[in-house]
Amino acid sequence: MKVNGQACRTIEAAPLNDAVIVIDQRFLPHRFSRARLTSVAEVRTAIVEMWVRGAPLIGVTAAYGIALQCRVDSSDDGLRQAKAWLDAARPTAVNLSWATHRMVEQLLATPRCDRVGAAWDLAVRMADDDVNVNEAIGRHGMHRLAELSQKCGARPLQILTHCNAGWLATVDWGTALSPIYQAHRAGIALHVWVDETRPRNQGASLTAWELGQEGVPHTVIADNAGGHLMQHGQVDLVIVGADRVTSRGDVCNKIGTYLKALAAADNRVPFYAAVPRSTVDLSVRDGLAEIEIEMRSPREQSHVTGLDAAGSLTEVLVMPAGSPALNPAFDVTPARLVTGIITERGVVAPADVARQS
Amino acid sequence: MKVNGQACRTIEAAPLNDAVIVIDQRFLPHRFSRARLTSVAEVRTAIVEMWVRGAPLIGVTAAYGIALQCRVDSSDDGLRQAKAWLDAARPTAVNLSWATHRMVEQLLATPRCDRVGAAWDLAVRMADDDVNVNEAIGRHGMHRLAELSQKCGARPLQILTHCNAGWLATVDWGTALSPIYQAHRAGIALHVWVDETRPRNQGASLTAWELGQEGVPHTVIADNAGGHLMQHGQVDLVIVGADRVTSRGDVCNKIGTYLKALAAADNRVPFYAAVPRSTVDLSVRDGLAEIEIEMRSPREQSHVTGLDAAGSLTEVLVMPAGSPALNPAFDVTPARLVTGIITERGVVAPADVARQS
Repeated sequence: MKVNGQACRTIEAAPLNDAVIVIDQRFLPHRFSRARLTSVAEVRTAIVEMWVRGAPLIGVTAAYGIALQCRVDSSDDGLRQAKAWLDAARPTAVNLSWATHRMVEQLLATPRCDRVGAAWDLAVRMADDDVNVNEAIGRHGMHRLAELSQKCGARPLQILTHCNAGWLATVDWGTALSPIYQAHRAGIALHVWVDETRPRNQGASLTAWELGQEGVPHTVIADNAGGHLMQHGQVDLVIVGADRVTSRGDVCNKIGTYLKALAAADNRVPFYAAVPRSTVDLSVRDGLAEIEIEMRSPREQSHVTGLDAAGSLTEVLVMPAGSPALNPAFDVTPARLVTGIITERGVVAPADVARQS
Repeated sequence: MKVNGQACRTIEAAPLNDAVIVIDQRFLPHRFSRARLTSVAEVRTAIVEMWVRGAPLIGVTAAYGIALQCRVDSSDDGLRQAKAWLDAARPTAVNLSWATHRMVEQLLATPRCDRVGAAWDLAVRMADDDVNVNEAIGRHGMHRLAELSQKCGARPLQILTHCNAGWLATVDWGTALSPIYQAHRAGIALHVWVDETRPRNQGASLTAWELGQEGVPHTVIADNAGGHLMQHGQVDLVIVGADRVTSRGDVCNKIGTYLKALAAADNRVPFYAAVPRSTVDLSVRDGLAEIEIEMRSPREQSHVTGLDAAGSLTEVLVMPAGSPALNPAFDVTPARLVTGIITERGVVAPADVARQS
């Protein structure tokens, strides 16, 4: 997608295949900067310190980390150690260990003299695969948006999204935002309500920035406001990403998604989750009972970072110093509140997600 | 309620009846300071700049403003001018013009030589009336809390509240928090989940501070988190204040209340609104169709104020400078989602609120 009018991916191989260039997302939306990662140690730092975030992007970044390590030490032990070290960077990110597993498994089966080139080729292929999957999600989702927009007459289609499931969380296109970008490029008039998404503000800081750079009309709202907008006919559909979709179609996504799904159901607004098939976890059925929700640092709730009047990034305390906070990171939206799941294979009812071929 | 262990009201007459002392709430929860207001001009500034906020407190503060003006100019014209000037300070605050109307109407019927004393007495009485009404709301609400706590066994009763309907919004006790304070003082074990309440953060900054000062166990959460907690049996009841309750029991309150009411209904958690009877507006039936929702400045959404590392109150930008924001201040929770309305006269089903005697 575009940054300052130029096509851009979140991660790209350097011209000599000796480094990988990522967007350092820590300073968005206030500062756009790129970082050159030349070693597995630098890749690990970028993952730990969240220069890169979003499950698909973390996986691809780690794959490049293995490829960089291969240039230094392509031995079986060296690769296994690099994998273990990277996997520990974000222990709950399933995509990370999935990506490093795929890299190492394939490299161990490759003659050692060919490993450096093979590692790089595989990392590039994993990045391209992500782009292709997201592009397909967007194509299927766009058809649904086009259908809904026909009921809008002259006014734009109104879409609400929560958190960031945009291209910044992937290599390109994003998941929930991919249909929006493709519909916008196809000339469908639309406008996006962007949930701020407390406590980490990924909506206000990342989704709003992405949409602005791509020229998609949008408005930031408090997480509290979406229900009111739906009551007043201001939302035609809700579309979110997901961290996990269960076999019966429960959607585990950023905290607060469930509240929007309730409001959508109460106001007969269609509610979609857009995910790669790899996010469907057939080993889990009842999301509420079976998925353990990560509790993150209370500091994400008690402190907010933004740009002060002098233009410096500053962190401020926004509650009494003596009060405790709790920070559950995700919630589960039961399948009964979900209209459809959009994957690279098409759009299905949640109950059919396990059978989708 | 208590501040640093001392009983305190939000507004008190100075010993010589020549000024009124208020809490300057702009700096809470980071700094507790009081301000002495000696003229109607100072009272107006305190209302305009939100040193005081909350409908009941604004009304009482304006009443003291009329009483202070009376000491300078007790003529009919002088009183009418002071009323008009105060009313324009917060034009949408119904309690403000109601309070100044009550003051001026009574003073115009009082011989001019008696007006200074009469004005002061009436302002004091209006403040005391507010305290008595809120104390009665708390008494009725506490009985409901006591009933619910009997099902909790050894664990504390878990209450969720949104925004600030505490003593800081009134003269003392508050509305939604009054039952909580009285239950806590009566020895009922309880814990309060405090919604942050974006975009103005009244929950994190005011409710958490109040509860902390009073020693009530509480935890601040993102507005997004309440639904998840209810899904996991962590909330026994929701209790909020309201800006307006309609004749059929629709509840107009701070933006986001509707989402919590939906989650409460979905998880069979009782949902209560606690209000003085004066908040029940029999002229309105369908809250969604008839109540116009105030749109406030987008700056409340785009900027956040807090304490920086150096201990200074600092405002930071938390979204892209070029993105628009929308800031609806209230929403309407339909009566079908409301378990009961708690007033100074007792607890009634929403459908019966117009008939409550």
